[in-house]
Amino acid sequence: MSRKKIVALSGGVGGAKLSAGLAALLPASDLTIIVNTGDDAEHFGLSVAPDIDTQLYTLSGRADLARGWGQKDETWNAMGMLREMGEEVWFNIGDHDLGLNLLRTMRLKRGDRLTDITADFARALGLGMALLPMSDTPVSTLIRCDARDYEFHEWFVQAQGKPTVRDLVFRGAETAPMSPEVSAALRDPDLAAILIAPSNPYLSIAPILAVQGLRAALIAARAPVIGISPVVGGQAIKGPTAAMLSGFGLPVTAAAVAALHADIFDGYILDQRDHLDQTAFQALDIHAIQADTMMVDHPAKEALARVALDFAAQLSKVSA
Amino acid sequence: MSRKKIVALSGGVGGAKLSAGLAALLPASDLTIIVNTGDDAEHFGLSVAPDIDTQLYTLSGRADLARGWGQKDETWNAMGMLREMGEEVWFNIGDHDLGLNLLRTMRLKRGDRLTDITADFARALGLGMALLPMSDTPVSTLIRCDARDYEFHEWFVQAQGKPTVRDLVFRGAETAPMSPEVSAALRDPDLAAILIAPSNPYLSIAPILAVQGLRAALIAARAPVIGISPVVGGQAIKGPTAAMLSGFGLPVTAAAVAALHADIFDGYILDQRDHLDQTAFQALDIHAIQADTMMVDHPAKEALARVALDFAAQLSKVSA
Repeated sequence: MSRKKIVALSGGVGGAKLSAGLAALLPASDLTIIVNTGDDAEHFGLSVAPDIDTQLYTLSGRADLARGWGQKDETWNAMGMLREMGEEVWFNIGDHDLGLNLLRTMRLKRGDRLTDITADFARALGLGMALLPMSDTPVSTLIRCDARDYEFHEWFVQAQGKPTVRDLVFRGAETAPMSPEVSAALRDPDLAAILIAPSNPYLSIAPILAVQGLRAALIAARAPVIGISPVVGGQAIKGPTAAMLSGFGLPVTAAAVAALHADIFDGYILDQRDHLDQTAFQALDIHAIQADTMMVDHPAKEALARVALDFAAQLSKVSA
Repeated sequence: MSRKKIVALSGGVGGAKLSAGLAALLPASDLTIIVNTGDDAEHFGLSVAPDIDTQLYTLSGRADLARGWGQKDETWNAMGMLREMGEEVWFNIGDHDLGLNLLRTMRLKRGDRLTDITADFARALGLGMALLPMSDTPVSTLIRCDARDYEFHEWFVQAQGKPTVRDLVFRGAETAPMSPEVSAALRDPDLAAILIAPSNPYLSIAPILAVQGLRAALIAARAPVIGISPVVGGQAIKGPTAAMLSGFGLPVTAAAVAALHADIFDGYILDQRDHLDQTAFQALDIHAIQADTMMVDHPAKEALARVALDFAAQLSKVSA
């Protein structure tokens, strides 16, 4: 098999771990990461893009892994000043992070594409892979709960993800075109695999799939599409995935997550700690295998990336 | 004399020292400082107001006196990040300072008046005097030099004030109204003195005087208008005043500075180290006295403020 390009669709933390594993294995020119921008929003007049920044910071070794967002060795003096001025600050941005967000905001106002801005940031941070926003057109996730609707960060940060989610709306997605770069990456004849990172299926993956034409492009791609489970042992590794599955009346299992987007998957990787319900996956027409999906350290990220790439090669042979 | 309210017109550092001296002497409710906003500009998408911030930081004890601008114990991580992203950063904003500027920018975009924003900042910093922008309508100083025109900070910061100034334009000033607060302070029947701080006469005082109706309001005020010289011993205490006087072919003397705005002054205080040219001041119809104007420490600021207030009382008696 001569095809060698890899595309990963990704949200924030879990996805960035997979990105790091892939980046360690692949030549940078072979790796494209398509990142959710449904969490993008305006705070303090700044255009924030949390999942893009989590990728940038994780891949450049700057992420604060303990906190789970933002940069390590960060200071918080700008927000401290806002608080001293009497502002209620529930969305926190560190000082380094603020610099990046200031620059993104300036450039967006000048009319630069988020794709170009992100590429310049990645290059400045020494990253060689293609890190692509899912679209250059804003998409914003609205969270519908019983009592009210929430903007994404109102729900995720301010309300700590507690109100039970009844529905999600990816505003702007159906008319948001893929960027030419995203479209080209998914049509690349050299594409060997499309990986769906172990990110939240509702909040991180669904908005990407909602972008105009993107789901169809995945289905049309000749390369196998392989998902990695974000739930292990009946729990999400991080974030609200488990609570959301339960809220929608679904079991907290890899099969339930895979079933949410069953049309796109050729293969699925669930954790070795879980029971592999082959009947369920066969019913979804998805090949399923098990691996250590926890990515607790760098070798584990690299190992999972290798499992995913090998699995893709195997599925390509099967379908060839 | 029962009148007791004091108004000071002020630029940045030198003016803020006088403000601090006055604040130490007067009940907060008797002190109004009208601040130059001709240096206000947009940097990194933020609305900066350097002279207002110098007043806020100086009066609340946060100013970095050694650097001469910004806050002490400051960090510079946001700007550091911009530089890492490849941006040329010639206008530096510290992280705390950035927080204040973010909030000002957000509030201006919401339609709040700079006067109200500044009042809220002052209150949050524990300041009781009235700190008033000269106008709520933007005024921006353009510096005309031989080779080209400069925006204020391009000239002052980026070009380090080196190109010889041929002319100054205070764009927007003639149609910028005084705020109701500035107008009321200058018409207050209880007004005992109007002090013109030892700030740059071209860059800090002239823009204030250029605001629609403001010069006329000073001249019409019953209280004496007293200037304090920003030049001592043939040099400016700080900044480009001396070079500008020379560039305009004027001697670097207190009398030359007083002559620039002779129509407004009833009295003028020059430094005790200088020669008091009574003939020159008599020709300008300005009463002149000498004092220690250097304000090297807090007692010196307070002493100069006291000299100015006593001088005003004396001139009031003369004219009464």
